[in-house]
This record gives sequence, structure tokens and C-alpha cells, in this order.
Amino acid sequence: MSTAIKDGHDRFPPEPWRVREIGLDQRTLAQTESLFALSNGHIGVRGNFDEGDPYGLPGTYLNSFYETRPLPYAEAGYGYPESGQTVVNVTNGKLIRVLVDDEPLDLRYGEIRHHERVLDLRRGLLHRVLEWQSPAGKRVRLRSTRLVSLTRRSLLAVDWCVEAVDEPLRIVAQSELVANEHIPALSNDPRVAAMVENPLEAVENGWDKLRAQLIHRTRNSELHLAVAMDHVVEGPGEVTCEMASHPDWARLTAATRLGVGERLRLTKFVTYGWSSQRSVPALRDQVTAALVSALDSGWERVVEEQEKHFENFWSGADVELDGPVVIQQAVRFGIFHAYQAAARAEQRAIPAKGLTGSGYDGHAFWDTEMFVLPLLTATASDAAADALRWRWSTMDLAAERARTLRLSGVAFPWRTIRGHECSAYWPAGTAAVHVNAAVAVAAARYLWWTGDEAFGRAYAVPLLVETARLWMSLGYLGDDGEFHIDGVTGPDEYSALCDDNVYTNLMAARNLREAAEVARRWPPDGMAPDEIAAWENAADRMAVPYDKEKRVHEQARGFTGRKVWDFERSAREDEYPLLLHAPYFDLYSRQVIKQADIVLALHWCGDAFTAEEKARAFAYYEPLTVRDSSLSACTQAVVAAEVGHLDLAADYLAEAALMDLHDIEHNARDGLHIASLAGAWLALVAGFGGMRDTPHRLLFRPQLPPGWERLAFAVRPRGHLLRVEIVPGKVTYSVEGEGPLEVTHCSGRRQDVLSIRQGRPVTRKWKAVRPLTPRPPQPPGREPHRLP
Amino acid sequence: MSTAIKDGHDRFPPEPWRVREIGLDQRTLAQTESLFALSNGHIGVRGNFDEGDPYGLPGTYLNSFYETRPLPYAEAGYGYPESGQTVVNVTNGKLIRVLVDDEPLDLRYGEIRHHERVLDLRRGLLHRVLEWQSPAGKRVRLRSTRLVSLTRRSLLAVDWCVEAVDEPLRIVAQSELVANEHIPALSNDPRVAAMVENPLEAVENGWDKLRAQLIHRTRNSELHLAVAMDHVVEGPGEVTCEMASHPDWARLTAATRLGVGERLRLTKFVTYGWSSQRSVPALRDQVTAALVSALDSGWERVVEEQEKHFENFWSGADVELDGPVVIQQAVRFGIFHAYQAAARAEQRAIPAKGLTGSGYDGHAFWDTEMFVLPLLTATASDAAADALRWRWSTMDLAAERARTLRLSGVAFPWRTIRGHECSAYWPAGTAAVHVNAAVAVAAARYLWWTGDEAFGRAYAVPLLVETARLWMSLGYLGDDGEFHIDGVTGPDEYSALCDDNVYTNLMAARNLREAAEVARRWPPDGMAPDEIAAWENAADRMAVPYDKEKRVHEQARGFTGRKVWDFERSAREDEYPLLLHAPYFDLYSRQVIKQADIVLALHWCGDAFTAEEKARAFAYYEPLTVRDSSLSACTQAVVAAEVGHLDLAADYLAEAALMDLHDIEHNARDGLHIASLAGAWLALVAGFGGMRDTPHRLLFRPQLPPGWERLAFAVRPRGHLLRVEIVPGKVTYSVEGEGPLEVTHCSGRRQDVLSIRQGRPVTRKWKAVRPLTPRPPQPPGREPHRLP
Repeated sequence: MSTAIKDGHDRFPPEPWRVREIGLDQRTLAQTESLFALSNGHIGVRGNFDEGDPYGLPGTYLNSFYETRPLPYAEAGYGYPESGQTVVNVTNGKLIRVLVDDEPLDLRYGEIRHHERVLDLRRGLLHRVLEWQSPAGKRVRLRSTRLVSLTRRSLLAVDWCVEAVDEPLRIVAQSELVANEHIPALSNDPRVAAMVENPLEAVENGWDKLRAQLIHRTRNSELHLAVAMDHVVEGPGEVTCEMASHPDWARLTAATRLGVGERLRLTKFVTYGWSSQRSVPALRDQVTAALVSALDSGWERVVEEQEKHFENFWSGADVELDGPVVIQQAVRFGIFHAYQAAARAEQRAIPAKGLTGSGYDGHAFWDTEMFVLPLLTATASDAAADALRWRWSTMDLAAERARTLRLSGVAFPWRTIRGHECSAYWPAGTAAVHVNAAVAVAAARYLWWTGDEAFGRAYAVPLLVETARLWMSLGYLGDDGEFHIDGVTGPDEYSALCDDNVYTNLMAARNLREAAEVARRWPPDGMAPDEIAAWENAADRMAVPYDKEKRVHEQARGFTGRKVWDFERSAREDEYPLLLHAPYFDLYSRQVIKQADIVLALHWCGDAFTAEEKARAFAYYEPLTVRDSSLSACTQAVVAAEVGHLDLAADYLAEAALMDLHDIEHNARDGLHIASLAGAWLALVAGFGGMRDTPHRLLFRPQLPPGWERLAFAVRPRGHLLRVEIVPGKVTYSVEGEGPLEVTHCSGRRQDVLSIRQGRPVTRKWKAVRPLTPRPPQPPGREPHRLP
Repeated sequence: MSTAIKDGHDRFPPEPWRVREIGLDQRTLAQTESLFALSNGHIGVRGNFDEGDPYGLPGTYLNSFYETRPLPYAEAGYGYPESGQTVVNVTNGKLIRVLVDDEPLDLRYGEIRHHERVLDLRRGLLHRVLEWQSPAGKRVRLRSTRLVSLTRRSLLAVDWCVEAVDEPLRIVAQSELVANEHIPALSNDPRVAAMVENPLEAVENGWDKLRAQLIHRTRNSELHLAVAMDHVVEGPGEVTCEMASHPDWARLTAATRLGVGERLRLTKFVTYGWSSQRSVPALRDQVTAALVSALDSGWERVVEEQEKHFENFWSGADVELDGPVVIQQAVRFGIFHAYQAAARAEQRAIPAKGLTGSGYDGHAFWDTEMFVLPLLTATASDAAADALRWRWSTMDLAAERARTLRLSGVAFPWRTIRGHECSAYWPAGTAAVHVNAAVAVAAARYLWWTGDEAFGRAYAVPLLVETARLWMSLGYLGDDGEFHIDGVTGPDEYSALCDDNVYTNLMAARNLREAAEVARRWPPDGMAPDEIAAWENAADRMAVPYDKEKRVHEQARGFTGRKVWDFERSAREDEYPLLLHAPYFDLYSRQVIKQADIVLALHWCGDAFTAEEKARAFAYYEPLTVRDSSLSACTQAVVAAEVGHLDLAADYLAEAALMDLHDIEHNARDGLHIASLAGAWLALVAGFGGMRDTPHRLLFRPQLPPGWERLAFAVRPRGHLLRVEIVPGKVTYSVEGEGPLEVTHCSGRRQDVLSIRQGRPVTRKWKAVRPLTPRPPQPPGREPHRLP
């Protein structure tokens, strides 16, 4: 890991607002394509080179544009989903190839004299500068700026130019649309996507002047896709342009001669549209309209819109820190990508990888609600609302799934694109019913932060009520008077089919209570009068297993009695991630934890534990948790901070934030870990900021990582913009917005309710939490990623 | 079910030694093909008609002749088997078709004037008599007798003749070998076999005089198969014979004219040989040699040998009863098929369906050791020894599997033909580690019954020691001082991945103790001195969960606290078998039991429970057990008898015995339920006979089903032939063999040790067990199959 960090440092110098790659490491092409991916939540393009080749994994994605594929079972079972959904690499519109005299520009040949790619996090632009000498010695300079517009949902735009450096050159630029690109197989890891070969069937192609379009459809899912491109070509002299189109490609070829220092510039606008319902002519018109609008505005205006959009976003979402610049950079990188993944998703899913790669088949999981939506709800609540409206829009499928499972209410899928359950291994999929609480609690949380009553009535009520009904049909009041939920899989995927998983039970209890609250406020039609009382009764009696001998909560009933995994052996034999080296048979029956499970409950259901219980649980589970999932470090950071292990929290923060920049799990090539990136924000805000959205008001328990001088962040609770600035020993709360905002300030055991008004910041002292246990060890070899 | 019984009665009149079908029900062709299957454990032929068509499922099987096929996983995991094994329908040698004048004899056309098939259980012969009138009004009588020889492993023989009834006829008989028959798809039930299309690749074919042979091989498993046939043709006059062969078929065509009452007779000998190692010429010679030997002996001698073989078998295996004849018939049918499945298996597996059909892909499971071997060990111990030697011969594969699972010792497969794990759903497969105890305990049991020291040293020691090592690596001494085995699946497949499954734990304890015993007697090389002590310590401390509130043992830790299945709903909505109507997700977390689990422990590990505990456990689990498995009724019969519910025991006996004759599970078409059939013997001998093989001597607790006048059976313990004859109130033990045999006779609470010598039978009184609980109910609609 330390090597990875070093590499990371060499390759991406720590700069607060940019991710800059200098030079080129061909071995990590696929990783950098993920890092430099641009998206607006509707369309996403990987950071492939303008000239297409070489590539690690070519990728252009449209949110929820997928193909279905049969899910094979050697031994089938009742209720197994018959088909899966796989994100499709759609028509590539990024391509601008160039012929330098008589040689194609390709970085595998000739000499790279300078190469730099810069992701501008503040503005949402990807810049590239290249000076290249062809094998025959011809030198060109190439500059490009690429953007996926946040203000124009369907638009990808590239401003590209090539310059002759030291002698006159013949230059041919070719701007293309290409469908059905070859996709290389990257790995045998089951988490990597299934490949769909040639997913697109040609429907129509054509060109006119410098514009061309392609229309395709998928074979099984029957989705139609239209892509159009147009160009502005500027040369020093005459430029010969030729257009062509073909079922799977369309091309502008622009040929000219450049004197020394002269440039050929291409501005390329590409618009995408897709639908399962709209007709081919409607789609054709839609992409053309968007294209003409972009041409009408022109490149400069489009860039200006982008900058303004991001400026507004950052004003209420940025986190500033006086600490390691690499963390400042990584945290902004994380916020940027989490926002990109969601901003214009507009009632479609936010996949685990956003639109940055095809990992996990492009599926969305519970990550969205538990790790990404907390950030979005606090900083860009419209995007959070849309994500929840997407869940709501799939409730018919979730209700059908619940019926299949012989349950009431709704059962949201473990993994999906469109809303159908696509999990083919049910013990680690369908059985992870906690996804339903994640959705429900996220809806309640959004309501809490925004007070959006229209949303509450139309979306939060059905989401909360129907998930509450699921829990009531799944769980039962046992003879012991407690409400039990048996046979489910919690967040820790190295356990499965457990009884009374603490996280699941406590989240279900939250779900039931929040459902009771909204159902009282906005009573749904035809509700049985005693239903709400039954929910509250179940929530009150929810079983929370506790090991009295070990004086610690059990991850699930019986967990702490199990045999502890042989971590020494796994370290010795280099067996991480364990799922690739040990059978579930073994993992499931031992004390070994893939990712924060009960520790996640300590964060999100903290009221259910005393401070001492939290400290003891964290200390107990830390040596069992191997973090073979990227959904772990951020939560461990939050709880480590709460129980006073600030240095450990800082380490976990670094791991969460650097997951992809340092390629900690060696799979950033498949796409970014959006939840981990959003989790880095949680590590700072909920961890060191100590922020909790408790029933009545926001609560903060400010602290700082050892050696940091300052941490400042902004959130947008209930119509206010709240800024929190933490410096050693002191914190300042300031507010923009009408009326006072109450917050709870905690320091040690003391809690103060502060009322803060615009223009009257409030400063308070804070003391670090005194840890009740020594810093707990991790399994050998699984210590957190550390800054050098 | 009552309809099934009625059908059964109409179709198979109750006769003590025969199963006779009168007439023909085309809808149940596949079922009767299973019932009338003949086998010797090496080759097996379904009861297809001589003339081939019509058929339900054509079937000719050679033990362990299989093809591999890839096992697909939509989500793969570490250690999942990559390929499965599927029994292959090999070259059909049974075929003798006939052309009557100018019409093919086919029972779907013309008129069946008389048709009878008779399975002679006493002699091992299948007879058929047919009088048929062709659509053109030509009448023939056809008689055939078919046998699969128990004394000649590779021989199938048919004596066939056709007679002109009331006018002279031109007759053409065609005797064939046909490879790659078309296999119809029978069902969507996952328990039905995967189909392999055209599994056989032609290698060689040829003919000479009336003899022909075909040699084929499988594509992936690379097994070679040779089949040869020869004929004796007898006509009243000249018979024109013509031979032909082709890669996938060979044929004798015999044409003649028959006057009224004249007959054309064909005696057909077919020999089979296969190997993964022997050369094609070697196989060719092998089948020819067997063929010439059969021809040399002739039909009558072959039949005589068969009769003698069976006479000898029945003399030490028969069960006689003065009770319902339908049960007498069914029990002999069961013993016959169980013996057929094993007699000449000779160190190959005994599949769950024997060689009577392709159900379960032709795989062997734990059924063999737990249900079939008890019968064989007591009555035909050579066959039991061979079955155990087969397990022993796969120990290298089982050791490799254990390593894959990160365990010590050996891990036998859940399902297999050759020895490789072929289970593609591990929670109901690999996790059912109790298969290892079944193997080990069966080896110890064989040793107990036979005193076969050579076997003990060479086979029992490695089987017991290596399985003991498995348990030691799988289980652990918990902080509570008990030895726990977590995350396993017991016999009940409606639970999975349980902790401390009582059956598994108690069988593991037996395994450990038996291993300690043989390892002390025949110390293996290089054994650590404290290993035996560790086994005994683990066995002594084995966890056996008990619910103190409910005062009943738990099937597994926590089981009795779970929510009880909604049996009313399942009855109302006709949801049996549940696995086709409910997800595992639901089943696994409820109190609902597919098949005897703890009740199986009550039988086989009875010493671990008091009489009251047995009665209470039986009463508790009975209303939860739906018997969606055929491996349940026989065990429930045994334990019902032990706890004094004799009428219930009789009902379960009937269900076990009539499983296939009455087609209780509607899948006899896929092959017979050999374990249930052998289980009927257990129901009688261990149930009403109360036989237990306790450490020092056989124990009997004789009882009779209500209304029965007599039950007599024979077993062969330790070189003796012991006959037990139970009549109301009295039991007589008599012995053949040298020296005295001690048995324990129980009646009520009293136990007497009897010493019995040849020629001096001992008679004792018995009283029925007084039940401690009322007769327990079953889930609604799941009451046992009852005699009308």
C-alpha cells in the first residue's frame, strides 16, 4: 500500500482544487480513465483519450440505459431473478483522432515530450495538454478541454486543437461517433461487470454538413438511443471537411496544412437521448434540438454556465481544511464525483460506480441511500430528492418482489438498474433486507433536512409506510416479548442469514418509528387504526442482542460466541480480499467482518447505545474487521472519532478519501467507489465535525485530527446555509438564511443548544473526546491506509 | 393422495412377491418404467417396452458412466465447483421391435386385448405378456422375460417371442442397439436431471453373424463404452436374418412367416463394458467375452443362476408380515430395488435413484450411507463394504475439497457420481457436512456388524480418522466449554447454515468416538499422541442445544425461538412442496421442516436422549415437518414406534414403502426413491422390531402395528443369521451360525440380555410402549399417506 501512496503522490501532486496527472503510466490507464471521468448523472464519459487509443476500458454511459441478460443457475430456486441488467457502453462521442503528416497520433508510439491531464474540480472541466513527436520526428501540440454539462443534461462538449510545433505539417483530424466498441476483459473478479458483446443494434444513421447522428437500440431491453454531433472547425487556412456515416459509426474528417505555430481547432458538441417509450423521430428531434441549442450558445457560453453551476454548488458543499493537502484534494475529488454522479440523474438510480465505469454491472445498491444521500441531502438536496423519487418510481416492482418473497409492503432490490432484483446469489443479495430501511430512513432524513412537505406527502409516506409493512411481515414478536427479524444478511457480507442483526433491527426500528410519524401527519387512505401502534410496539421491542459475558453488543444473535477467524494465517498467506480465497461456508460461520456492520449502527442509530457501549463495541469489532469492502473505512472513521481515537479516525478518513486516487482496492479501473468518496465527507463532517441529525436539531461534537489547524464545512439544513469552522479548541457556527437556526453543540459530556442568526456567528470551545479504551488493533496486515 | 392409492390398487394388485400391472395407462408410462427397472448396480435398464415406443423416459445406465457439464453461476464464488456430472443414457440394448404383417407393433395404435407386466421380486425377472391387434386387425401374442444378471455383471438378457393368434402372419423382428436416443424434457423441477443431448460420440461399430457391437465415448469425461449383442433365433420355419451396423445403431432384422399358434423366439444377450482407462480393443474384447460366456451358458442357465442368487439373498433379507398385503408387497419391492441398486456396484456409488432413472442427475448423496447401507449391512454386507470402499476410493478428491474449504481431513461431496463435489448451491449442498459423519458412521457400523478386520484396518481407519479431523477443524471449543459446529446445514433442507445442528453434532460426536476407537485399535502412522484424546474431549463436550422454556431440544441453536411457518396458508394455497412455492429466504428463517432432522438423531443417536426427551421432541417437531422429502417418513415411523405411536408409525411405514408404487411425490418417473424404499425396511426392523446396533449387542424392542398378527425378519450380525418373529405379545429369536449370539430384548422399561444358540430359539413377551404424549398432529394437509 505504501507503494500505491508513493505512486499516487508522484502522479497526482497535492493541489487543493485539481487532480493533475503528469506524464503517462500506460499500466494504469483504466484507473485514470475512472478518475478523469466526467458525468452529470445522466450521461457519463470515462477519461479516455480524445484519440481513442490506447485505452484501458472505453466507456460512455447513459443512466439506466442497460441490456438484460439471462441469469444462469446450475441449481435454480423459487423466486430467483431470471434476468439481470447490465449497463451498456453506448456510442462513443468523445473521439477526435489525428493523423500527423502520415502517422496516427498514438501515445504507444513516438515520443511523449509532455503530457498532462487536469481535472478541474472547481469548474467541472477536464483539460489535457500533450506534446508528442511522431516516430518520424514530427512534433505536435495538442490541447483539449472536455465537459459534460451540468446545465444541459444531454450535452458532452470538447474543445480541441492541434498545433504544428517546429515544422509545417499535414494534419487530418477525425471526429467520430462509434458504437459497439470492443470491450476488453479486465478481470475474473465476480464484482466486475458481465460483458455484453455488441449490445447495440443499428436503427438509423445520417449526416448533413458537419453534423451526423446514429440511432441504435438494445436487443432485449428494447431501449432506443440517439446520438448526434456537430462541429465548429477553425483552421489558419482552408480546411477540407468530409462527412460519412455508417450503421455503427459517423465521422467528420478535417484535413489541412499547418505552418509552425498554427492551429487546427475543433469544437465538438455531442448530445445524447434515450427512451424506452419515445419514438425514433422523437429521439432524433430531441438530440438535434439539444445540439442546435449548444451551437447557438457556443463553447464559451457553455463553459461559463458550467463554471457558474459549480460555483453555486461548492458554495454550500465545500470542505476546507488546514491539514494534508492530499486530503483536501481527495475530499474535494470525492464530493465532486459524488455530485457528478447524482446532479442530473433525475429520478434514475445513482449506481455504485456512478457513470464512471461498468463495475458491478452499473448497478445501484444501498450505498446510494446510506453513503451518498447523506452528503447530497445536506448540500444538494434536489439531487437527493430525485434519487428518492427514483426509488419511489420502482415501488410497483418492489411490491411485486415482496409478494414473491411472501412478504407485505415493498422489498427493494439488492442490486438493480431499473428496479428489478438482479441479485443472483440471494444470501448476499435479497437477504440483505436492510436496503429497505436505508431507503426509508433516507426519505425521512431528506424530509428532516428540507421540510419539503410536498415530498413528504407524495413520496416519504408511501416509502416509509410500505417498508414498515415489510418489516412487520418479516419480523415477529417472539415468546420472549421481543421483536425479532431472523434469517437476514446485514451489511457485513462475511456473515449471512443471521438472526437479529443489530444494524438491520435498529434501522428497521427507525424505519417503523419514522413511518409512524409521517403516517400520523399525513394519514394514508384506508389504514387500519392499530397499524401505527403495532409499528411503534415493534420498534420499542426490537431485539438488540447483547453478550452479557463479553459485555458487548452482538453483530447478530450468537455472533460473539463464534470461532474467531485465523487472521494470522490470512496475513501470512496473503488472502485478502478473503472472498477470493475462502469459501462463504467458512467465512459465514466465523467472527470475521468484511465491513462495518454494528459499527454502522453505532453511527446511524447512535441513540440506542451509551457512550461506553459504543466504545466497547468499537474496540471489540475493530480487530475482526478486514475492510474487504470500500464501504467500511468512512464509517470506522466516524465512530473512531466519536469514541476518541482521532488518529485512527484520520487514518480511516484518508483511506476512504484516497480509495480511488491511491487505488487502494486495485479496482478503480472498473469505476470509482462513489460511496467511499461520499463517505470521506461523512468522515469529516460526521466524524470530526461530529454532526448528527438528531430529532430536534443538528448536533455537532467538533474535534480535529491530530496536527490539523482548521476544518470548515457548510451544510444546508432547513433553508439555511450553516457554516462550521473548527480550529484547535474552538468552533464557530455561522448561518445564512431567515430566522434563527438552533444547533446542539457538544463538548465532553456537555451539550448546549445554540440559536444562531445570520450575521451573528457563535463561537464555542471544544475538548476532544477522551477514549475509554486503548486504540484497538486491526487484523494483522489490515491496518488502515496511512498518509506517508 | 387417496386417489393415488386407489389407482395404485387397481393397477398393482396386492400380491406378496410380485408387482403386476394389468392393462396400460399411457399417462404413467414413465412411472412404471421406473418401477419395472432392472439393475444389478453395475448396469440398469428402465422398464421401457421391448419395442421401444411409446416411452416415458428411455433409460439405460451404467454405474458411474457420466458426462461432465459446466455449472454456470450468475454470481460465482470461491470454491464453487466448475463442472457437474450427469448420468448418461447409454446405448439401449433392450430393443426388439416387431412388424406385424405391414404394421409396426405400437401400443398407441390398434387394440390392446391383454397386457400384463410382472416384476418377479423373488427371482429378479421382468415378465410381459401382450395380446395386440393391429389397426388392420392382425393379432399377435407377445411374451418376453427380461433380466439384468446378478451373477454376470455386464449382462442384460431378454427372452422374447411373438405368436400369430388367429391367422398366418408375416413377422419381422428387429433387435437393436441404439445410442443417443432422444430424451424428452419431463419437468421444470430443479431436482430433475440436466439433459445432455447426444452425449455419445461414435468410435467403432461392426457386426458378424448375429452379433454386433458399438463403441462410443463421451466428449468431456472421456469415458469409453462398448456394447455387444448376440442372438439365438428360433422360428417354426426358415427365418431370414440380416445384420447392419452404423455409428449410432446396430440391428438384427429377422423375418419369417408364422402359422396360427406358431412362434418366433429371439433370445437376446447384451453385454456392457466401460472404462476411463482401458483401451478400445480391451473393451471390445471384454464385452465379447461376456457375451460368449452368456451364449455358452444359454438362457435357461442364466435364469437359473439368477433365481439361485435371489433365493440366497432373500433367505437372509426377507421381511414377512401378516398385515396388509399391499405393505408386504411394497416392502419386498423396496428391499428388491435397494439390493438391485447395490449388489454389483462394486466400489462405485449407489445413486439416490439407483440405476432406475436420471433424477438428481444420477448423483449419490448421504442417502446411501444413512438409509440404504443399514439395510445392506444387515442383509448383504458385501454390497455395503463395496459402497464404503467407493467412498474410500474418493478420499483424495475429498481431501482436496477439504483443503479448498480450508479444512483438515476429508470433506465428502454433497452430491456426486465420481467423487467430485457437484453441488452448485452450497448452502443446501457443501454446507451439509453431516454427509461426512454418515460415511464414517456407516463404516463403523459395517465393522460392528461384520467384524471384518481387514476392512477395518484398510478402510474404516482412514474413513473415520480423516472425517474426525474434518470435525476438529470445523468445530471449536467455545468459551462456554462446549464444542460447537457453526454454519452448517442439517438434514432439514428448509433450514441452512445453522449453528449446532443437533443431528450434525451428535453424528460428529459418534464419528469422533468411533474414530478414537479404531485409531486405538489400529493406530495410523504418525498420529499425534494427543489427537485421540482431543477427539474424545470434543465428543464429550459436543453442544446439544436445548430450549429450557419449551423443554425440548432445538433442531439447531435458536430454532425453537423462530416464527412458526404459516401452515394454514400453505394448505389453503396448495403450496407443497414448499420449495417450489416459497423462497429459501422465507423457509430458512421459520420453524418449518422439510424432513426428519432432530428426529433422525432420535433414531441414530438415541443414547443422547432420555425416553421423555424423545417423546417430547417427537411431539414438538411432528407438527412442523412437512415431509417434502422422501427421506422423512421412514425415520418418523421408526421414532413414532419408539415413542409408542404405533398407528402413526404404521402410517409412515406405508408412506415410505409406497413412495413409488403409489407415486406419492409425483416424481417416480425420474427414478425410484431408493432411500425411502430401504427406509421401509428400517421402519419395520428398527421401528416395529425396535432394532438398534448398540455398542455391545443388537437390541430389540418388539412391537406390532395395530391389527397385525406377525412380523418376521432376518438379519446377519457377526457371522450369524438371526431371525426375529414378532406375534402379538411374543417374540421369538432364533439363530443360525456358530456359537451363541447375545441380543438385548426390551419390553417396557425392562431389558434382558439373551444368549441364543442355533436350534434353540428363545421366546419372550413384549408390551407396547406407552406413549407419553398424545398422538401429535402433522401440518394440515401433510398427514401421512394412509392405507385405504
